[in-house]
Formats: sequence, C-alpha cells, structure tokens
Amino acid sequence: MIANTISPPYYAVIFTSILNSEHEGYQNLAVEMEELAKGQPGFLGIESARSEVGISVSYWDSLEAIKNWKNNTLHLEAQEKGKTLWYKSYKVRIAKVEKDYSSSL
Amino acid sequence: MIANTISPPYYAVIFTSILNSEHEGYQNLAVEMEELAKGQPGFLGIESARSEVGISVSYWDSLEAIKNWKNNTLHLEAQEKGKTLWYKSYKVRIAKVEKDYSSSL
Repeated sequence: MIANTISPPYYAVIFTSILNSEHEGYQNLAVEMEELAKGQPGFLGIESARSEVGISVSYWDSLEAIKNWKNNTLHLEAQEKGKTLWYKSYKVRIAKVEKDYSSSL
Repeated sequence: MIANTISPPYYAVIFTSILNSEHEGYQNLAVEMEELAKGQPGFLGIESARSEVGISVSYWDSLEAIKNWKNNTLHLEAQEKGKTLWYKSYKVRIAKVEKDYSSSL
C-alpha cells in the first residue's frame, strides 16, 4: 500500500538491502518489525518492496522518533540478526521530505 | 544494486506506485527511463523494487537536477503514459538526504 503520510515536512528512512542466498527466518522477523514500527510514537507509514534489492521506506514525524525506533530493544536485536545472518549488504539513508504529490489516493 | 551515492547532503526522489492489472508496455518504458535518467546531469544513482507496490528511489545532487529530469521531454511523455495507462495510484516525495550509513559495500 502507498503510505498516506501527513503534509511535509516529515522524515523518511530509506533502507535498501541485499539478502544472502540463505536467509531463513528473515521474512517472519521483517513482518514482525513492520508491525512493531507501526505502534511507535511518531510513525507515519511504511512502504516495502523486494526485487534484486529490497527497499523499505518508513516515514516519521521527527528525527527523534527515528532515533527512538532505531534504539528500540527488539529492533536492536533484529538489526543485529540482519547484520550477522541475513544481509549481504545494506544502506540506510535518513532524509527530510520537503515536498510530495500524488494521484488521487 | 544498492546505489553508491556521494556523502550527504544530496536529494532523493521516492516514487511509489501501484500498477493497473493491465500494464502492457510499462516494464520496457520503465527500463528505458532508468537508462535515460542515468545520463542526466546531477544523477547519482537509482534503486528499484516491486512487490505489491513498486518503489523507485533516484538520487540527485540538487533540486535543480530533479526539476530538469522531471521536465525532460521523453520523461514527460513517459509520465503521461504512466498516469493515463499504467498507474492505479502513485506518490512522489522529494527528500533531502541528511545522513547515511551502510555495511561495507
């Protein structure tokens, strides 16, 4: 689904990753983390897709909300699993959304 | 591939879309537009994936570069086709990347 966010400015975390060929357990935990993110203060929405790369963009109302989510205990454990077991490579970008426009959603 | 961009700040265009069930011709033109984007001034990289939604994030060195690409003649024609033929819905977000970090890429 396309995230129905607030009016800019707000923040986006663009997370791009390539999985190892072996990544048992990844999908379940990814879904679990999306559900957990949705309950965090300042969370606005999330969009995810995976082809050769996986792209997950989560939207937040402040940098503080992003920091809190990054340091959430269960999320920290998941990040560690990702780094050691599942991700061949990844990149995280923190960006301020300055403008948006859409078709009628 | 994960885009190997410059050090922040730089800009991201986050384009999220849902296709109509009929979208003949879409994939070819999407590939063509990616190739065309790569040749534009200020282009830094692009990441694309599609599951339920398609997410394409392109990276640019300035807002002016984004504006020029938006108004590129061939790109304008493609945008029009997208709106009238292929996209059930879409959203475009222009964001300033303030920070990034990655695993060893």
